[in-house]
Amino acid sequence: MISQEMLMLGKNGCIIREIAEYSRQRSAQIGGENVFDFSIGNPSIPAPAIVGETMQKLLTEADPIALHAYTSAQGDLTVRQKLAQNIKTRFGVEADPALIYMTSGASASLAISLKAIVNPGDEVILLAPFFTEYSVFVQNAGAQSVIVQCRKGDFELDIEALEAAINEKTRAIIVNSPNNPTGVVFSEETIRAMGEVLRKKSAKFGRSITVIADEPYRELVYEDTQVPYIPKFYEDTIVCYSYSKSLSLPGERIGYIFVPTAVPDAQTVYTAICGAGRSLGYICAPSLLQQTVAVCDGVLPDMTVYSKNRTLLYEGLKEIGYEVVRPQGAFYLFMKALEEDAVKFYERAKAYELLVVPSDDFGVSGYVRIAYCVSHEQVQRSMPAFRKLYDDYKKENEL
Amino acid sequence: MISQEMLMLGKNGCIIREIAEYSRQRSAQIGGENVFDFSIGNPSIPAPAIVGETMQKLLTEADPIALHAYTSAQGDLTVRQKLAQNIKTRFGVEADPALIYMTSGASASLAISLKAIVNPGDEVILLAPFFTEYSVFVQNAGAQSVIVQCRKGDFELDIEALEAAINEKTRAIIVNSPNNPTGVVFSEETIRAMGEVLRKKSAKFGRSITVIADEPYRELVYEDTQVPYIPKFYEDTIVCYSYSKSLSLPGERIGYIFVPTAVPDAQTVYTAICGAGRSLGYICAPSLLQQTVAVCDGVLPDMTVYSKNRTLLYEGLKEIGYEVVRPQGAFYLFMKALEEDAVKFYERAKAYELLVVPSDDFGVSGYVRIAYCVSHEQVQRSMPAFRKLYDDYKKENEL
Repeated sequence: MISQEMLMLGKNGCIIREIAEYSRQRSAQIGGENVFDFSIGNPSIPAPAIVGETMQKLLTEADPIALHAYTSAQGDLTVRQKLAQNIKTRFGVEADPALIYMTSGASASLAISLKAIVNPGDEVILLAPFFTEYSVFVQNAGAQSVIVQCRKGDFELDIEALEAAINEKTRAIIVNSPNNPTGVVFSEETIRAMGEVLRKKSAKFGRSITVIADEPYRELVYEDTQVPYIPKFYEDTIVCYSYSKSLSLPGERIGYIFVPTAVPDAQTVYTAICGAGRSLGYICAPSLLQQTVAVCDGVLPDMTVYSKNRTLLYEGLKEIGYEVVRPQGAFYLFMKALEEDAVKFYERAKAYELLVVPSDDFGVSGYVRIAYCVSHEQVQRSMPAFRKLYDDYKKENEL
Repeated sequence: MISQEMLMLGKNGCIIREIAEYSRQRSAQIGGENVFDFSIGNPSIPAPAIVGETMQKLLTEADPIALHAYTSAQGDLTVRQKLAQNIKTRFGVEADPALIYMTSGASASLAISLKAIVNPGDEVILLAPFFTEYSVFVQNAGAQSVIVQCRKGDFELDIEALEAAINEKTRAIIVNSPNNPTGVVFSEETIRAMGEVLRKKSAKFGRSITVIADEPYRELVYEDTQVPYIPKFYEDTIVCYSYSKSLSLPGERIGYIFVPTAVPDAQTVYTAICGAGRSLGYICAPSLLQQTVAVCDGVLPDMTVYSKNRTLLYEGLKEIGYEVVRPQGAFYLFMKALEEDAVKFYERAKAYELLVVPSDDFGVSGYVRIAYCVSHEQVQRSMPAFRKLYDDYKKENEL
């Protein structure tokens, strides 16, 4: 009687949430300090001070009726004007407030954008490894996911593989850089090459191929890493942004969809986005948070802890003997499992109280994701466990 | 290239929003005090003081990392435990925290519930007049809306018409009491009779017929009106609740879905709801608001202004000569248009600066909705305009 498709989605919950649940139980048994939980991408640094201050100020000074009122479905106009101005200043891309749609975070942005631009029978390319929920949103939009593997080793976008995967059904491609789960940032050269391929194929098949740029990690980068702003390199790009990671507000659900003026039929695309938001039950993005991000947009996170964790893990694990991908952004480290089956490796690591996420749900086999948005102490205390795990594997193989 | 269905939904925006836009423009021309805008159901009383105090307290005292973190997709467990306890105490219905799913408000609750429980080809009964977006959410779930008219005059649920509309495809019925747009509260007798009909038909066709109780106006009632809690009278009922109206927080998007233990296969239904939330891009309900409603659930709105507005409008319009439905709840008055075509009447009323919503989008012809969640001064100042409108219609008809 009920929807079997929804039942399956409900039953087969995201593995990350399952691990988090195990972590809670295990922590109750042996103490949280003895469980090295690297499973969930929940920021471990507090929101920048200005976020709380702004919320407090709004709650103290603004008229509560206006503050908590419905905004237009697209979002408060003054908020969108502020964001459009920031986009122009920061990225040098033309931005019209009338083409910005405030959302309840990145997942809402993706679900809405896909529902708006694809039709049944269309194909959407996902670059593996990818965030586990992409395929769920593609399915909700009635389209098919087509998986293109990134280059093993450095996990850069494989331009040839992408080119080979595009056909007359291809409608969109989701690009996530800095990447979850690898931490890789696609280079400008890669993005340019991708743009060329998409233009060529788009002309060949006579249909738009839209890039959906999923950018929640844009501000989380290390050293001098530059993250190319895709609309500057490929005109048919819709940007899905979220403040979850940059402002450490994942539970509050606030972000936006930005349709650059250069997108072909930008107004039509935007109107369909409004329709899709309506269809999926989104009335408006949370109003207090809309006002808050109008003030805090562009505020950078304090990367000190993430940066220390990254260095210790990357250098430490490499030194032990693990094969690790060097992260340039986000707070994830992608590590090769010590056996072919990543799920088996994940189960084995559990016995050392190391909770990592096997890569299969990200569309890649043989790796695990280490989310290092945790305290530096946890990383320090976990290193002997990572070493013991490695040594034990080594011993067995030598036997 | 884009979804024509979403484009249409985006183009044909909700008429209420269109009127609100006209109101803004007109207010700029002649001053807001001269525009009698009764179009939108945005509460005109501030959130109860405890709401702001609770939010401030959380922002001051709680650990910001935990406060703004992802909750589980179903919502924070302690919040759900609190709500389950309140449901038991207030309504005498068994409530399991593991069967409560926190949502981003009533529309999210409805879109998710429908997506979870219906299958393509199913029919969902809507009782006209109904909230304009119901049919959008039914369409998103892949089902067909079947409209059953309430009794003209008192707008009670027409049990015979309901019975006649149920067939082997009927899967659910949405019940909204207190009702938007009529303000009518279905009596206990009506709800009992509805339950009997649904049980009989469910047995006849060998399939579940689920009531989706859309209850954002539960706490907004006048005099000694009792709102029957539908799960007490019909076991296969899912409750969709929102704090938008009771706590004057429509922009913040917070509510819940409650699956009573008595619902057949309650756990399976709940699992499908989790799947549907995932599919539509809902990660979790806003975390600060979850914590806030855990404290403020059950706080009653100050009905003083709504009550004064209701009395003045109901008595005043009746005295002028209008045919009006006596509201027992919510903050809407349903009034018969002075000509058959409610849209023409709406256009005519505009010339008197009276902004009301024609009933056609609610699935009924010949009426208008007057949302009296406005200042009492506006209602007072509008009465001469309502009188002049009536007199001018009368004069014309006598000519």
